[in-house]
Amino acid sequence: MKARFSAVAVVFGSTADRYVLKGYTPARSLGEMLDDAAKVPGLTGIELVGGWHLNDANQDAVVKSIADHGFEISMLIPELWADGKWGWGTLTSADPAIRSAAKDRIRVAMDLARRVGCSRVSPWFGHDGYDYVLQADYVRAWDLLVEGLAACADHDPGVKVAVEYKVKEPRTHAFVGSTAKALLLAQEVNRPNVGVNLDVGHALLGYESMAESVALLSRFGNRLFHLHLNDNYRSWDDDMIPGSVHTLEWIEFFYWLSRTGYDGWLSLDVFAYRERDKVAVGRESLAWLRTLMSAAERLDRGQVEAAMLSGDAMVATRLLREALVGKG
Amino acid sequence: MKARFSAVAVVFGSTADRYVLKGYTPARSLGEMLDDAAKVPGLTGIELVGGWHLNDANQDAVVKSIADHGFEISMLIPELWADGKWGWGTLTSADPAIRSAAKDRIRVAMDLARRVGCSRVSPWFGHDGYDYVLQADYVRAWDLLVEGLAACADHDPGVKVAVEYKVKEPRTHAFVGSTAKALLLAQEVNRPNVGVNLDVGHALLGYESMAESVALLSRFGNRLFHLHLNDNYRSWDDDMIPGSVHTLEWIEFFYWLSRTGYDGWLSLDVFAYRERDKVAVGRESLAWLRTLMSAAERLDRGQVEAAMLSGDAMVATRLLREALVGKG
Amino acid sequence: MKARFSAVAVVFGSTADRYVLKGYTPARSLGEMLDDAAKVPGLTGIELVGGWHLNDANQDAVVKSIADHGFEISMLIPELWADGKWGWGTLTSADPAIRSAAKDRIRVAMDLARRVGCSRVSPWFGHDGYDYVLQADYVRAWDLLVEGLAACADHDPGVKVAVEYKVKEPRTHAFVGSTAKALLLAQEVNRPNVGVNLDVGHALLGYESMAESVALLSRFGNRLFHLHLNDNYRSWDDDMIPGSVHTLEWIEFFYWLSRTGYDGWLSLDVFAYRERDKVAVGRESLAWLRTLMSAAERLDRGQVEAAMLSGDAMVATRLLREALVGKG
Amino acid sequence: MKARFSAVAVVFGSTADRYVLKGYTPARSLGEMLDDAAKVPGLTGIELVGGWHLNDANQDAVVKSIADHGFEISMLIPELWADGKWGWGTLTSADPAIRSAAKDRIRVAMDLARRVGCSRVSPWFGHDGYDYVLQADYVRAWDLLVEGLAACADHDPGVKVAVEYKVKEPRTHAFVGSTAKALLLAQEVNRPNVGVNLDVGHALLGYESMAESVALLSRFGNRLFHLHLNDNYRSWDDDMIPGSVHTLEWIEFFYWLSRTGYDGWLSLDVFAYRERDKVAVGRESLAWLRTLMSAAERLDRGQVEAAMLSGDAMVATRLLREALVGKG
Repeated sequence: MKARFSAVAVVFGSTADRYVLKGYTPARSLGEMLDDAAKVPGLTGIELVGGWHLNDANQDAVVKSIADHGFEISMLIPELWADGKWGWGTLTSADPAIRSAAKDRIRVAMDLARRVGCSRVSPWFGHDGYDYVLQADYVRAWDLLVEGLAACADHDPGVKVAVEYKVKEPRTHAFVGSTAKALLLAQEVNRPNVGVNLDVGHALLGYESMAESVALLSRFGNRLFHLHLNDNYRSWDDDMIPGSVHTLEWIEFFYWLSRTGYDGWLSLDVFAYRERDKVAVGRESLAWLRTLMSAAERLDRGQVEAAMLSGDAMVATRLLREALVGKG
Repeated sequence: MKARFSAVAVVFGSTADRYVLKGYTPARSLGEMLDDAAKVPGLTGIELVGGWHLNDANQDAVVKSIADHGFEISMLIPELWADGKWGWGTLTSADPAIRSAAKDRIRVAMDLARRVGCSRVSPWFGHDGYDYVLQADYVRAWDLLVEGLAACADHDPGVKVAVEYKVKEPRTHAFVGSTAKALLLAQEVNRPNVGVNLDVGHALLGYESMAESVALLSRFGNRLFHLHLNDNYRSWDDDMIPGSVHTLEWIEFFYWLSRTGYDGWLSLDVFAYRERDKVAVGRESLAWLRTLMSAAERLDRGQVEAAMLSGDAMVATRLLREALVGKG
Repeated sequence: MKARFSAVAVVFGSTADRYVLKGYTPARSLGEMLDDAAKVPGLTGIELVGGWHLNDANQDAVVKSIADHGFEISMLIPELWADGKWGWGTLTSADPAIRSAAKDRIRVAMDLARRVGCSRVSPWFGHDGYDYVLQADYVRAWDLLVEGLAACADHDPGVKVAVEYKVKEPRTHAFVGSTAKALLLAQEVNRPNVGVNLDVGHALLGYESMAESVALLSRFGNRLFHLHLNDNYRSWDDDMIPGSVHTLEWIEFFYWLSRTGYDGWLSLDVFAYRERDKVAVGRESLAWLRTLMSAAERLDRGQVEAAMLSGDAMVATRLLREALVGKG
Repeated sequence: MKARFSAVAVVFGSTADRYVLKGYTPARSLGEMLDDAAKVPGLTGIELVGGWHLNDANQDAVVKSIADHGFEISMLIPELWADGKWGWGTLTSADPAIRSAAKDRIRVAMDLARRVGCSRVSPWFGHDGYDYVLQADYVRAWDLLVEGLAACADHDPGVKVAVEYKVKEPRTHAFVGSTAKALLLAQEVNRPNVGVNLDVGHALLGYESMAESVALLSRFGNRLFHLHLNDNYRSWDDDMIPGSVHTLEWIEFFYWLSRTGYDGWLSLDVFAYRERDKVAVGRESLAWLRTLMSAAERLDRGQVEAAMLSGDAMVATRLLREALVGKG
């Protein structure tokens, strides 16, 4: 498996939370972010937020700046979450004007994605969900999700639409909350350009196995279009650097990426709230990813498949240990 | 919505766990369980475990005893979890003989179900999953689940097969672990007699909303075939009596059962480890269910639908409060 | 138990999160918040953030405005979390200047609290913790917490210092993360004016029982100084209105407040992100609290104590049900 | 840090759960378990359950068998959980006869521990807790815990009593549920022979950091008496082999054991439900522990302390990575 490393631009920006709304470190321009990103050896892609980093007015300048820094645009993310107007839902809003605006936002991002050459967008419906009991009409929500996503997909069948799921935050419950729910949605929409952007931290948060999520997305229609990489303690979307909490599950994850033939980007999506040195964030993230991928590559395919067939966990664990640190 | 209350027979039995393997209270025969069940006013159905409570040899006697106690058989559960031989999987076992035995067990239960008149079985694939990293071939497992379940469903299209899901226990991870995964399975098997037995405690354990699970099972092919009722603290399958932890979510749940036209059994599945008085367990469970159903019935359909459409949580919460305790 | 209802002022303000940094609803002045608070019958106290709502320059005006709106100041919260400078810790910062600033902030709040008559402050050390493995010296942190808190307490023994704990957020792990940890801290500091502000949502988040937390805070030195009330789904600090998720545990909580003789404020701490009508948030919260307190008062003390002594859960559950909805 | 590896005898036995009550693999005698344990190079200690493996009648034979297999007895665990009679509590039972029996059981284990030379026992109060709301008198429970534990400690001040905590299972809530609660208990009992047996899986289950738990147990009175080692996915006590889920946190854990001067046993407590080859369980566990300890030893103390003082997570993570796999 050939690694193509990418990062969401904000990995190199200042991040905030509900307590420190102005951010932990000073605000930075996209140019400053790119300057730091360019100091991370091996990083070749940048994800941008369409409607935020990139819009009709600035797109030529931004695309040139990206190229000047030596990057490809790996993904365009339509901004559907940062404005208060989306707070009550986007595709599932009770307000038809908001639903239209959300579809427009996705379609504009698709147009931009085609023009800048990445030909993929990744909408995340984080505000489409509910907080309180009896607050949502679950059936209506799914009808609207299907209808809205289909309309977007049909706007340009040549641009891939990779839906990102997460079980909660900012809502206490999101409609599209798991790999399986994302697959139900993709299957009903039933367009070849609709698939999933798997944020592996969201998989961990949802008590999914990262590797199983890859396997299911492959098995059910080859829907794994993109990856967001980060780590967490399994009960919240901590957005920490890859490899900082888990180890063996990452090795299994890379094994399954290889087994299923994934050839897309490996894209960092980290919130480095308190890390002042953003270059170190990028470098350390890639150092971990390379370490874990190398371990996965050292696994003997025949031995692994035999262990999985037998279900012998002591063999599986030994193989992982030896792949990581050698036979000692 | 007309309530038909049922209980898994073991609600009235002695239950054990990994520490107290002999059970917290003295062992009891099926007859003793039924004697206690008969003391719970309003309980009219009993679920049995096929291959355990009920088999070819004793079925006439057991069926007669059930009837003599005034009960219908509400569900037959094929025993696929209580013997060590299933410990490495049933339909997904690496051993073809075990896979055959599992299918046989389900088909025998289907035959029994047809003969005793309940015409539904509920397999639970609790051992089909994995514990350790790199222990399972996720793709092969799903292939085997689909193949095996289809073979069972085709054995008798007149008997409903209601798959029960749970995210973990006894494995740390089960393949069929959520409402959405159960739906993916049912959709691929694609037989009208394949659906889901929703254990609402498993929904809570998986951070699902009980009502949303009902809604999705209805929306995706009308797959809600049966219900197992119990309560828990959301992080383990505590199998406590319904209503003992949650309240409002139960009211919403009953609202959605009514809205989606569910007309099946409401079946208790409680592990009353330390409750010596099993009759009290049944009576208190039904008292809570009636309380919560009554509250759901007091909800004004128009007001609820308006609240859900607007997403106004303060109205939704007020409606729930007033339905529960009145306008005070 | 006589109820004195209070609210953190921001219950009536606009709230933001890491995705919608500008807030879901338009920003509001303290005056606007108080105007809405005054429309909630029964609300008589307001909590302010010292160094934010209240400072040396504006204190006379703010105190007058509070009184003009008919409120007492129920609590002063020293602002130790909203500025990026606190992001790497307050009392446990590696930087002595930050540690001094944090102590100053608490002492200034204590002075204000004395002058405005509430005589209590509630520091929350939300940034004192760690995110990554091997990032923190846990022993040094506790030494600094004890030293710093003692220094504050000694500043004015007539002002109560009520420490609020929470297990995580904004750090993935906070040092003072549970009722028991807060008690360890209070016991070592060993000043009569040091106790705990129990945020019951934080108890739920930490898999504590709200009632057990009250009991322990009472038993270990009578340290329950204040209460913050809200609700959540147990896996995150959702800050929803009281009673919107749990019911029975609230009744038990009020039972134990009464049993242990708590006579302080019942203070709302809700983040009403998407609720446009802030008055409704206050009214509905108080309606729920009154409903749940009334149920607790209807519990027969003798029957409850007998149930607790015997550990008979079916009796306990019946008593709760009857207290809530009557004997039906 | 010199490693002394031990194992609970049942690591080499057959284990059961609430579904497979007869166990996943054939039952085995203590002799068979010891035979397998003896095949694990480096394992030198065995923990026994007093009142189960070891009693007045068989103790000479068992002690001789242990010695003949080349083992020390590392710990005696009084059996306080396997009989249904303990199901409603031990030291906190409402029944004075049960409370006496529990104290007797602990004291008998202490006598045995003295005679066999290990001089330490580890009671676990797993049934002392509650399941349902309003079921327990939390204050009375703590009074009884303190009184009972003190009475045991005074029985023989020369035998260490290492209390094991766990937040839940078999009760939904245990009274002694966290490191901090165990410390509150030990501090109030206030005997030098009362401390804690830290089961690191219980720390993970309770969202504790294993290393922080070590640090706190050291800081608050040097109470870390013993260790139980296993791994899990953080939301249940899965009792998997050490290192099979987590990696970096184990390295930090060993760093802190060394930093705080722990010189006791490293004792496996694994439930190898589905592992047929128990020798492999022991060997693979020790292989992982050695791997992780070696990594901890490769950490440069000065660099780690500097990283912890600065809180620079990217440095901390790099040090862990390099300690594990080298500077690559």
